[in-house]
Amino acid sequence: MKVLITGGGGFLGARLARALLARGTLDGRAIGSLTLLDAAYPAPLPEDGRLARLTGDVADPALLASLPADFDAVFHLAAVVSGAAEADFDLGMHANLDGTRQLLDRLRRGARPPRVVFASSVAAFGGELPAVVDDETIANPQTSYGAQKVIGEYLVGDYSRKGYLDGRALRLPTIVVRPGKPNAAASSFASAVVREPLNGVRYECPVAPETGVWLLSPRRVVDAFIHAYELPATAWGTRRVVNLPGITVGVTEMVEAMRRIAGDAAAGRLAWKADPRIEAIVRTWPVRFATPRALAMGFRADPDIGRVIRDYIEDEKIRPA
Amino acid sequence: MKVLITGGGGFLGARLARALLARGTLDGRAIGSLTLLDAAYPAPLPEDGRLARLTGDVADPALLASLPADFDAVFHLAAVVSGAAEADFDLGMHANLDGTRQLLDRLRRGARPPRVVFASSVAAFGGELPAVVDDETIANPQTSYGAQKVIGEYLVGDYSRKGYLDGRALRLPTIVVRPGKPNAAASSFASAVVREPLNGVRYECPVAPETGVWLLSPRRVVDAFIHAYELPATAWGTRRVVNLPGITVGVTEMVEAMRRIAGDAAAGRLAWKADPRIEAIVRTWPVRFATPRALAMGFRADPDIGRVIRDYIEDEKIRPA
Repeated sequence: MKVLITGGGGFLGARLARALLARGTLDGRAIGSLTLLDAAYPAPLPEDGRLARLTGDVADPALLASLPADFDAVFHLAAVVSGAAEADFDLGMHANLDGTRQLLDRLRRGARPPRVVFASSVAAFGGELPAVVDDETIANPQTSYGAQKVIGEYLVGDYSRKGYLDGRALRLPTIVVRPGKPNAAASSFASAVVREPLNGVRYECPVAPETGVWLLSPRRVVDAFIHAYELPATAWGTRRVVNLPGITVGVTEMVEAMRRIAGDAAAGRLAWKADPRIEAIVRTWPVRFATPRALAMGFRADPDIGRVIRDYIEDEKIRPA
Repeated sequence: MKVLITGGGGFLGARLARALLARGTLDGRAIGSLTLLDAAYPAPLPEDGRLARLTGDVADPALLASLPADFDAVFHLAAVVSGAAEADFDLGMHANLDGTRQLLDRLRRGARPPRVVFASSVAAFGGELPAVVDDETIANPQTSYGAQKVIGEYLVGDYSRKGYLDGRALRLPTIVVRPGKPNAAASSFASAVVREPLNGVRYECPVAPETGVWLLSPRRVVDAFIHAYELPATAWGTRRVVNLPGITVGVTEMVEAMRRIAGDAAAGRLAWKADPRIEAIVRTWPVRFATPRALAMGFRADPDIGRVIRDYIEDEKIRPA
């Protein structure tokens, strides 16, 4: 079978690519080729004869037209992150809305309807929220990124209903711990408060210590992408989107878990410096969820923040400084 | 002030235009000019120095670029109807999604942020529905038209949040009684079962007599467009969409109300002939609603189907045959 990952050069896309190459199959079928599409390839990728990299803009019709027409599996992860989409409205609309629209249209005109997993986001939620967001809470995004993701969900839903493809959208919690450096995502702090001090780097947290985060680890989100793909269409019904499970953790709790694992010296590298622009975005995101639908479908959260931090240390071969 | 109505050549757009010209003001300001934009102008319009008609495709960037840049009020009603958008996916996406996107982008680049009223639809709802749809029911459209309308709502919401315009989206019930002839809308039957027999024309209803319809009259929907415009932004909060009030009426009830008003001869012109394609679409639409938010905002439904039919007879100067 032929697999495509958009955003395959990014952290999650590359991690998913490595996992797929390592397991060698999807839904019981051997993966013959794995094509990555991204603007750049900073994340590590193995040498592997099955792997091909295309460099370009997912919203470029010419690039999309050049893609093979017979993908069986597509993981659509390419996106401009929340902070960047909020700072540059046109850029976000281009990459996140036009890119998704054009990709789906390209797939629709392929040799056969592929199965498509779309990475949506908890940023779908905002405004006046209930104390606990659940499967019946209306998406009311308060960022352009969130609006673009919700629009993508409705596109995936309608293309699926029409039989043009078999789509499944996952609303991802904030992914913690991301490796690398702080980036333009408003959620960047949620990984940085753990990662930077563990790596011996001082970090100024732009949100208050009591800020809560609804999070999922890189290991569990890669599992979720694969599980979403392997579920039968009947498991989704007429609603092709699901809120993934996660755990609610306060920034203080994250720092204390890091202190228990890596000691006072690491925790001492964290300082607090509020950034009103970041706080304004983060404040619109819900923190507490009930996800019975996802749990019934077999999606799983991490057990606790300590496990999440230890997995990060193991996966990224960190020697806590 | 300068007003634009897209879809201004259609039944509702022209009716809104006549109402605005007759009242002369919006939100207390005199209407200096009223521009209509549509592909054709079948509906009657008065001779009026304030009125200008532009003929073309609302999704044509060149036409949009030629529009004045300083509209104060925009009513965006232009759309390809549900049956046509389902039969021709590309046409629906072009007119209903690209058209809305490009119009909003044009308005965003204008001289000042206009206030925009967007006609969305009850077709936003579908799938596994509660017995009564309310303000907290998730939009889960099961037609491309419905998906395109929901996407338009999220665009209007995000452009409003960004301050590019001040948008308000109304989910319209089925509008009954529409004048004219049966058209490609799957909801066409809901007017035709009353209108055709009243006008002396035999009509074969494509859905079963027990089919229910959530409806609003042309008079009340024009009132709703104007009321939506005149409400302050604070009345909308972070959610720029509302389910309009309506009444639930069975097709049998509609026919019996017509019989009471126009006699057995009129009712005798109705026959039943199921059309599975129409029934499949109509079956996805909910019939029972609770609309506390709209009622609290001052929107109003019709009192009963008899009043709706009598208003139609009066407005269209029908002499029941």
